[in-house]
Amino acid sequence: MREAFTGELTAIGDSLIEMTHLVGFAMARATTALLEADLALAESVIEHDRNIDKLRDQIDERIIDLLVRQQPVVATDLRLLVTSLRMSDDLERMGDLALHVAKAARLRHPRPVVPTELISTILEMNYLAQMIVTRAGEVIATRSVASAMELETVDDDMDRMHRRVFSVILDPSWSHGAEAAVDVTLLSRYYERFADHAVSVARRVVYLVTGAWPEHLPSPHDQLAP
Amino acid sequence: MREAFTGELTAIGDSLIEMTHLVGFAMARATTALLEADLALAESVIEHDRNIDKLRDQIDERIIDLLVRQQPVVATDLRLLVTSLRMSDDLERMGDLALHVAKAARLRHPRPVVPTELISTILEMNYLAQMIVTRAGEVIATRSVASAMELETVDDDMDRMHRRVFSVILDPSWSHGAEAAVDVTLLSRYYERFADHAVSVARRVVYLVTGAWPEHLPSPHDQLAP
Repeated sequence: MREAFTGELTAIGDSLIEMTHLVGFAMARATTALLEADLALAESVIEHDRNIDKLRDQIDERIIDLLVRQQPVVATDLRLLVTSLRMSDDLERMGDLALHVAKAARLRHPRPVVPTELISTILEMNYLAQMIVTRAGEVIATRSVASAMELETVDDDMDRMHRRVFSVILDPSWSHGAEAAVDVTLLSRYYERFADHAVSVARRVVYLVTGAWPEHLPSPHDQLAP
Repeated sequence: MREAFTGELTAIGDSLIEMTHLVGFAMARATTALLEADLALAESVIEHDRNIDKLRDQIDERIIDLLVRQQPVVATDLRLLVTSLRMSDDLERMGDLALHVAKAARLRHPRPVVPTELISTILEMNYLAQMIVTRAGEVIATRSVASAMELETVDDDMDRMHRRVFSVILDPSWSHGAEAAVDVTLLSRYYERFADHAVSVARRVVYLVTGAWPEHLPSPHDQLAP
């Protein structure tokens, strides 16, 4: 009985890791669609978001099913299952943020959304997004508190990029007008929130392992002021 | 036993309704702090966000405790508890959005953040935020599918306001520069997201009652493209 339960927990963990792959891939493709004004690719990212939502729903069903079949369940296991529900929410939301990037590409097509001087910054933000979601997957797999702490550095870099975007927009030399400023403001926020949710996933793992919220990782809901 | 369980479920529902009051109040006060450049009020909203987070944590504990004590739990009850966890997340996130509005007021203090021609729009967005969170509370209390559907109208109005903000910023007559454009873009998104999460709460209630996602309410994660 206990063995079957452990097997189910492993399967849920695997599905969460699969979600990290899907949302990382979605953000990478959305970024390409954005920077290359590739409408077909943007549409494909938008279409594929359903698969991420479905995987989240499957994890839900699995958890509820497990709770029904495996009673009584001890408090530690319940905490793990509740945390898994929260992690799948974080990951699903990361998929949505990739979706928003793809929608921005579609909305402005065939015009490019990101002015030339910000392309390298957006590329860097995507790179950081890939790095942080990969590490979040590793943290789920290994339950390593040390790896969770490493996410913090990546998130700090992301926040720096987010501030750089604002400094470029607010520089007197900005020549792309208000529409580009609005678009880039929201895009930058999507990448920054993507990283925040990855940090949130890592924090939840640390909480499960140590029973306390880590001091050095920002709270799941700490935000950079606008 | 069953009676005690029902009592606990009612208490969890009451806590969720209490959260709707707190986050509505937080957004109302944050809006005042924003429009009147009231630093003390902004600080107070920021400080009080902890209470909202604490209430969410208490709901979590209560649900886990209930699951541990009341086993076996049938699938319907589990679904209700899982949905309650998700609703408390939505509500906590609404509190964060009020927090962001307060942080914008604090960041720019003593300068006003919202240009004169957008003050009435922000006031309207706060009004809609109050209306939608009140209705979300009613939906939790009454489990009325009809009331849940009414939220949709309010959310449509909110989306209209969100688009109006963009049309003002993007009008050639915009004279407030890029910083104000960036600030107002993010602020408008905070109100719009606040309404989205209220819709999400209502949808979850409809799902519980009917067993299917409502067709006419937007999905919890449908977004207005930037």
